[in-house]
Amino acid sequence: MARSRVYLDWNATAPLRPEARAAMIAAMDVVGNPSSVHAEGRAATALKERARAQVAEAFGAQAADIVFTSGATEAAALGLAGRGLHGAAVEHDAVLGWIDADLPVDEAGRVVVQDPAQSVLQSANSETGVVQDLPEGLALVDFTQSFGKLPVAFDWSGAQMGLVSAHKLGGPKGIGALVLRRGLDVTARITGGGQEMGRRSGTENLVGIAGFGAAAEAAARELADGVWEKVAEIRNILSLALEAASNETIFVGNTGPRLPNTVCVIAPGWKGETQVMSMDLAGFAVSAGSACSSGKLRESRVLRAMGFDPALSASALRVSIGPDTGREDVLRFAEAWGKAYAKARARAA
Amino acid sequence: MARSRVYLDWNATAPLRPEARAAMIAAMDVVGNPSSVHAEGRAATALKERARAQVAEAFGAQAADIVFTSGATEAAALGLAGRGLHGAAVEHDAVLGWIDADLPVDEAGRVVVQDPAQSVLQSANSETGVVQDLPEGLALVDFTQSFGKLPVAFDWSGAQMGLVSAHKLGGPKGIGALVLRRGLDVTARITGGGQEMGRRSGTENLVGIAGFGAAAEAAARELADGVWEKVAEIRNILSLALEAASNETIFVGNTGPRLPNTVCVIAPGWKGETQVMSMDLAGFAVSAGSACSSGKLRESRVLRAMGFDPALSASALRVSIGPDTGREDVLRFAEAWGKAYAKARARAA
Repeated sequence: MARSRVYLDWNATAPLRPEARAAMIAAMDVVGNPSSVHAEGRAATALKERARAQVAEAFGAQAADIVFTSGATEAAALGLAGRGLHGAAVEHDAVLGWIDADLPVDEAGRVVVQDPAQSVLQSANSETGVVQDLPEGLALVDFTQSFGKLPVAFDWSGAQMGLVSAHKLGGPKGIGALVLRRGLDVTARITGGGQEMGRRSGTENLVGIAGFGAAAEAAARELADGVWEKVAEIRNILSLALEAASNETIFVGNTGPRLPNTVCVIAPGWKGETQVMSMDLAGFAVSAGSACSSGKLRESRVLRAMGFDPALSASALRVSIGPDTGREDVLRFAEAWGKAYAKARARAA
Repeated sequence: MARSRVYLDWNATAPLRPEARAAMIAAMDVVGNPSSVHAEGRAATALKERARAQVAEAFGAQAADIVFTSGATEAAALGLAGRGLHGAAVEHDAVLGWIDADLPVDEAGRVVVQDPAQSVLQSANSETGVVQDLPEGLALVDFTQSFGKLPVAFDWSGAQMGLVSAHKLGGPKGIGALVLRRGLDVTARITGGGQEMGRRSGTENLVGIAGFGAAAEAAARELADGVWEKVAEIRNILSLALEAASNETIFVGNTGPRLPNTVCVIAPGWKGETQVMSMDLAGFAVSAGSACSSGKLRESRVLRAMGFDPALSASALRVSIGPDTGREDVLRFAEAWGKAYAKARARAA
């Protein structure tokens, strides 16, 4: 019981980076409201704009195109409401509620986009790690899971809009951005003081914004340093260990490009939520599907869209790791998981 | 030049309380996503629910009725969009965009409510400090400026909805809440993971929520300890000193109940924005109208609604203090302000 826990749910949320922590604590001493014209207000604005530049630089975008929001979920609402765009059933819930989910998905999880200008596409899927090819000119790309883990750049993507979130790359929860191609505008959904160039009112989450900027900068540096290639090596060790633990497992989304940190594995006959609870008791934090489904653990909509039957779709586990995850962590996990699966199968037999 | 600056713009935003700072730093170590079911997720949920209970207790509300948002501005949109409620022109911009601003305002700044169930009313005005009598059964009360400075309680107010913001009472910027009378529901404007009981999706701003809870608790304790009565004494010293500095000043909103920390003074012939800049150079942070007007300094809409002419409405200054403000601070300010006003008048003559 004294053994420390192992956090393997980085796609749900990543631990706060030390750089973000330091920037947030420093921002706590900035008393001003960025809307105030006095020195204290200008200092707050300077902090906000520095963070905006950091996010823009890390994301390959222009600072002026970044609209800070309370997260990717709000950014999705701001970018998508009333547009009637198309997408696939593998998109995140935050996107899915605003689109016609009529684009086909193949068994490898790849979305077939017919009309990019009228379509939304995720850069990477949070559950399976599947990375999409982005056709030129998409209306909106959800970069929430790829930003920080893969080399992505908004300006190169050719998309009209992009969604990003701080807490997936080691920034704080509750801050994100809608990124807009120059010249494009959106109808504000939160009006009032006219902050964010009138696109999103409300006194800014300065501590969160400062943390987002610092985290984005650190994430970009880490990515350039090849840290995520090492993460992929650990992920591969994890996959092999899980494969060795049972000869019935099905690996999802591993036939094409994918995130370097994600393993999605189906254990036939063993419910995903039971796996999560069992592993939680054993000291490991993992997930069945998206954490954002607020504890509603059911069959995975993403896996259903890829053609898996309901039983298999309800038996999937997502293990998502990060730069702090060691070889020992994943081997311990695979061992515990294999034992628990064997027990579950013995009980079912 | 070595003299330290004096911050007299507490209604724009208050300095972060040490209790909030400590709670926020502690929350940075909570890695989980509150939507995750594992131990890390449950720890995040526990933190969030503890803060919700703190805010509820301080605000005289039930924890289940508190919907965390990115601030009072988002809370206003969530509570007001599509309802077609009525209000007065003295309401904050965040409210004004969603209502018919047809309720009359008298010269003392008091709003005449005809139909409470169809009306919105602010508890206190940010520019003038004028405190409203709240008729029973209002559709929504904006408590943003009074919560923490005056004894207010949502349950006693009889209102259907309430708006609150953390940064006005020493919590962080970018977090607030819509408070709902039990049984009332709202249509979510940000959808996705179904957080906040489906009323407001998006991974929660956990650091901000923790800071809000701690700040609300500390603010309530301070209020009970009579701290704001001492603030009112300093405010009265400030008023007398400003009155002594010029015999032409007009004090706004001081004939009835008002916030203990706010002075709104008109200096005829001296533009509010010039006053703010002049005082800024002299080392004092003050404001002309609401900070949330994003640097757009013009005649005050609030003062116009109270019947002041455009010239006087453009010559108002707001000085808002807090528990950290000392007698020396306000006397130094009044002296600097009086000198600058005399100079401005000499130039104009």
